Amino acid sequence: MANEKKLVEAITSMDEDFAQWYTDVVKKAELTDYSSVRGCMILRPAGYAIWENIQKELDRRFKEIGVENVYMPLFIPESLLQKEKDHVEGFAPEVAWVTQGGLDPLPERLCVRPTSETLFCDLYSNIIHSYRDLPKVYNQWCSVVRWEKTTRPFLRSMEFLWQEGHTAHATAEEAEERTIQMLNVYADFCEQVLAIPMIKGRKTDKEKFAGAEATYTIEALMHDGKALQSGTSHNFGDGFAKAFGVQYTDANNKLQYVHQTSWGMSTRIIGAIIMVHGDDSGLVLPPRIAPTQVMIIPINQKKEGVLEKAQEIKAALSEKFTVKLDDSNKNPGWKFSEQEMRGIPVRIEIGPKDIEAGQAVIVRRDNREKTVVSLDNITEAVGEILEKMQADMLAKATAHRDANTHEAHNWEEFTDILTRKQGFIKAMWCGDRACEEAIKDETGATTRCMPFEQEHLSDVCVHCGKPAKTMVYFGKAY
Amino acid sequence: MANEKKLVEAITSMDEDFAQWYTDVVKKAELTDYSSVRGCMILRPAGYAIWENIQKELDRRFKEIGVENVYMPLFIPESLLQKEKDHVEGFAPEVAWVTQGGLDPLPERLCVRPTSETLFCDLYSNIIHSYRDLPKVYNQWCSVVRWEKTTRPFLRSMEFLWQEGHTAHATAEEAEERTIQMLNVYADFCEQVLAIPMIKGRKTDKEKFAGAEATYTIEALMHDGKALQSGTSHNFGDGFAKAFGVQYTDANNKLQYVHQTSWGMSTRIIGAIIMVHGDDSGLVLPPRIAPTQVMIIPINQKKEGVLEKAQEIKAALSEKFTVKLDDSNKNPGWKFSEQEMRGIPVRIEIGPKDIEAGQAVIVRRDNREKTVVSLDNITEAVGEILEKMQADMLAKATAHRDANTHEAHNWEEFTDILTRKQGFIKAMWCGDRACEEAIKDETGATTRCMPFEQEHLSDVCVHCGKPAKTMVYFGKAY
Repeated sequence: MANEKKLVEAITSMDEDFAQWYTDVVKKAELTDYSSVRGCMILRPAGYAIWENIQKELDRRFKEIGVENVYMPLFIPESLLQKEKDHVEGFAPEVAWVTQGGLDPLPERLCVRPTSETLFCDLYSNIIHSYRDLPKVYNQWCSVVRWEKTTRPFLRSMEFLWQEGHTAHATAEEAEERTIQMLNVYADFCEQVLAIPMIKGRKTDKEKFAGAEATYTIEALMHDGKALQSGTSHNFGDGFAKAFGVQYTDANNKLQYVHQTSWGMSTRIIGAIIMVHGDDSGLVLPPRIAPTQVMIIPINQKKEGVLEKAQEIKAALSEKFTVKLDDSNKNPGWKFSEQEMRGIPVRIEIGPKDIEAGQAVIVRRDNREKTVVSLDNITEAVGEILEKMQADMLAKATAHRDANTHEAHNWEEFTDILTRKQGFIKAMWCGDRACEEAIKDETGATTRCMPFEQEHLSDVCVHCGKPAKTMVYFGKAY
Repeated sequence: MANEKKLVEAITSMDEDFAQWYTDVVKKAELTDYSSVRGCMILRPAGYAIWENIQKELDRRFKEIGVENVYMPLFIPESLLQKEKDHVEGFAPEVAWVTQGGLDPLPERLCVRPTSETLFCDLYSNIIHSYRDLPKVYNQWCSVVRWEKTTRPFLRSMEFLWQEGHTAHATAEEAEERTIQMLNVYADFCEQVLAIPMIKGRKTDKEKFAGAEATYTIEALMHDGKALQSGTSHNFGDGFAKAFGVQYTDANNKLQYVHQTSWGMSTRIIGAIIMVHGDDSGLVLPPRIAPTQVMIIPINQKKEGVLEKAQEIKAALSEKFTVKLDDSNKNPGWKFSEQEMRGIPVRIEIGPKDIEAGQAVIVRRDNREKTVVSLDNITEAVGEILEKMQADMLAKATAHRDANTHEAHNWEEFTDILTRKQGFIKAMWCGDRACEEAIKDETGATTRCMPFEQEHLSDVCVHCGKPAKTMVYFGKAY
């Protein structure tokens, strides 16, 4: 019973201490564990299964649009990392260095990949010769390492899992098209599968990726009003190609540089799922990403026929859904709490009286809505409830995001929102980096993105009063 | 045309120089590429797609028998690696060491995982408390690093991809059962999916895994008569549990040590696929593992209606198989050679005369057998041909293995076989490690395994003449 108790102990309330609530959920839902390596997390079965589902669905979407998977080395020689100036400046301070192999010191240090642009450029310079070899649209699923000082499960860790796509194209237009295409794949995936609405836009020069000409981002709003950068897509132009000599002969036999992109989504997105949908009972998983969609919990399971009926229901539902049956000897109340803590989308309660009446009770995890359904059409009923729940979760997250998105027309409104409210602030900006940095220094709010959907809120910059160039989403961010 | 030519240039003949043939196939079929990091390989799309299929099929088989996937850190602190004496002695000489993180030297060196027993023990000591927490049957898909001096694509590289399963059980019996169960999963997978027959057996103490009580192995015979260890499963008893303090309270509230196992299969198995099935035209992939199963090659494709019909066939076949259509402007001969080099199981030739006759020509990759089939039932015909090819490939590999398995009843026969033949040698052995080492020193042949299927070939050891304990498969190995 000690083990049962641990799982269903009350967790910290979200409103009381959101950070502690997050830590509690991650731990009690058994998503991760701490390891003996500072800042590296262990993904336990419940956490890794979410990542597997994310992989499966994203990978399917990638392959539909011509992405091919590869695997590149874990290590990058120091000399290779240094070939692109901006890139090495951005990453060198936060990489891990291998200096010894076996019993011997290495002639050249190797960094453990923080990202693999340099390796892909190196490969592309070897295998791209003619315009017939283009485009190359490669991706890899792997882990990367960044030497972070403070870490939190999923949100920031020294090692994390991700996918990184790296492409090479004949023209600048095609590279830009692919950059935007992949951003849209991420945004659609997040909305349709994770039930998280995204703001799509471009990062300012200050916030863009080291070595990129343009970085595009999708930004989500967490329950506590803080923003989370959830996926990025970069257009490198021909900068990396020039640094690494990635050239091809075009149809007129002229030597040209390729144009490159890269794009990534990581286990960080699991942090978003937790912080957008979770509640004081634990995790709430959208049906389309939940590793277990249905938990059957028998009531009075020692009564004759109850477990048999529960198993029968499980067998029937398993053809369409992922289903578990909790026939352990814990009492139903414990089982309900465990199912809720783990975020399993629906539970089915089935006891002697239900069986007699030819029915079962379905309870939604998100709003605890109960539906009594006939056993005759339970599969259809579960399907409908899961679809409804998926849609409602996106609607709820969107309503929360919209209710916490504010317009600031001047600096007084801007600081007032930061003091008395939470969430995104839409405001006009002059485009000047010094002004952007001043806003951050004074308030802690950063530019999240220059959204594709622009609005004209004012003629002047919200901070400095100079002519406005663009509308920006500001926010405090993870 | 330069690119076409490169792919279909003649490769070295297997019989002339098997090692060079292997290197040629790996390169020309575009499975791997060399990287800027000595000894690390790049898995290109054609190579990685084979690994993805291996993963998908093995993972499905794992999950059917209760395996749960997790992800553990890439790094192991030196102090953790040192907790189990035999284990650290086995691995410390061949690991990569991270000594610097960001701009600072580390207080303790971290090794890049060569295998993760120590990390799993550390986790298990934290999450296993009671017999109710057992068994734990975890697995991870990841890359590992071993600082090898000489490397070859797939067969031996500094970094390789694999899965490593790590389990903890209440009893020794259950651990042994799981060890054998997983060995059988590997053997069945190799036979049924990869068409490679396996000898199952136990490793001698000299050849067992560092820290294991018993190591079981599956051994395959390559086309050149050398053996390849293709998967291993280890029973650790309670040795690691004692070193790491992995204990649980049993039903009587008594503290007990768990019993552990680990088991792994790696990208090395792709080397086996190449060396068992390949021929002088390149790769030959068994239909059940081939990323592309059917290549449609139009003949006279500029003639009206040919490409349309080819596309029609592709659409129909795609419902059951993975199909590609080569409609590039290369001539059919080039396309045939490319399809053969890449090992695509069947090609379909379709030209104006075929269309007129309502038929197509199907050519098997393994034996070039041609079948003319009616377009009306082409899907069934392709299915039957692929099934037949899969079965024939296993039969052929088994016949080759059996024809190259010899019995040695005395030392003269043993050395004679090694001089004049190739393959496995079955012989009796005394069980003495010194004798085993002498055989290796004198001949280069090692004990591959003590097979589960024992035969009594003689009363005495083939080398020293002392009483025989067991029959052993000997062989020269990759």
